[in-house]
Amino acid sequence: VDLEMEAKMQILKDTIMKYGIVKDHKILKVDSFLNHQIDPVLMDQIGDAFCQHFADQKITKVLTIEASGIAIGLATARILSVPLVFAKKVESFNLDADTYHTEVFSYTKNKSYPVRVSKRFLQPTDRVLIVDDFLADGNAALGLIDLVKQAGAELSGLGIVIEKGFQPGGELLRSLHIPLHSLAIIDSMSPEFIAFRTSI
Amino acid sequence: VDLEMEAKMQILKDTIMKYGIVKDHKILKVDSFLNHQIDPVLMDQIGDAFCQHFADQKITKVLTIEASGIAIGLATARILSVPLVFAKKVESFNLDADTYHTEVFSYTKNKSYPVRVSKRFLQPTDRVLIVDDFLADGNAALGLIDLVKQAGAELSGLGIVIEKGFQPGGELLRSLHIPLHSLAIIDSMSPEFIAFRTSI
Repeated sequence: VDLEMEAKMQILKDTIMKYGIVKDHKILKVDSFLNHQIDPVLMDQIGDAFCQHFADQKITKVLTIEASGIAIGLATARILSVPLVFAKKVESFNLDADTYHTEVFSYTKNKSYPVRVSKRFLQPTDRVLIVDDFLADGNAALGLIDLVKQAGAELSGLGIVIEKGFQPGGELLRSLHIPLHSLAIIDSMSPEFIAFRTSI
Repeated sequence: VDLEMEAKMQILKDTIMKYGIVKDHKILKVDSFLNHQIDPVLMDQIGDAFCQHFADQKITKVLTIEASGIAIGLATARILSVPLVFAKKVESFNLDADTYHTEVFSYTKNKSYPVRVSKRFLQPTDRVLIVDDFLADGNAALGLIDLVKQAGAELSGLGIVIEKGFQPGGELLRSLHIPLHSLAIIDSMSPEFIAFRTSI
């Protein structure tokens, strides 16, 4: 199983190297397969990898954040046969008044934005797997973790597709003993080269 | 196959009747299974229904709009084994400068919002299936159709999960000979009752 999983994650890394576009050493564009155009075969492999890693966690719900987490979340929830919930960043007149609410600071936008989940969809009995496309400074992940805590639910795992290992989020979350599993960790990158962490 | 498909779509209608919440005769909340919490089993059935209906269309790409179209789009693209592209409503610093762009008027927000797709992800050779969760006034669908036309691609189908038959979008699109297929058409609704169109 480990070898099989390693082979699958090699496909992810190969895809990142082949189709990812690095801009000014900090921005990695993966819009041709992960967050604008989406490769459903890769999504299935990502979902499968998260499910195998957190197989013994008795997950009852997958939680992610709109918009780029939704495809990853659905692929994962589908294999686990549990509901997917995605937190809302965008104001919606249709959202319940009764929500868990947190603020996430975005360094790229240099401002905070509200993140909400209706209280109906996170219960104290839930064992929650959070998934997202990127981990950089960790603020979005900490926001989602905060929503899980507000609900009194159990955080059973945090699955990230691409961790930017040169930004502080991963180290911060591991120091807090968050059960983080990143499928690919990038230690450094440039327009010419992407260096993955080898022992994850 | 028709009976099987009808049975599956009965599950969708049953789910809408059981878990949908009608507010003031015009708003239908389906956030417990379609656009906030998502039922992956229902998504597979929806994707399957669209794939069967448009099976002879040689679809090369599924197109939808963030955020609530993404899960429906992935479920459909996965079965068709083609990429999913979702159009962006939200400003993203990561989006290409070179995009197809249209404006969609929202009656609920009483203003237009921009909708964009990178030119890299829609080609003149593409045969595009557009999918979305709701069809009401038809403006979002017309916007996505406009993006397909700008790309010089072929519009091969438009798949809608819930059409509000008492709003003008469906009639408008059919009069334009758009190959529209709605899985459930609601002719009237109130907090007590939802009436589906029977011959679709």
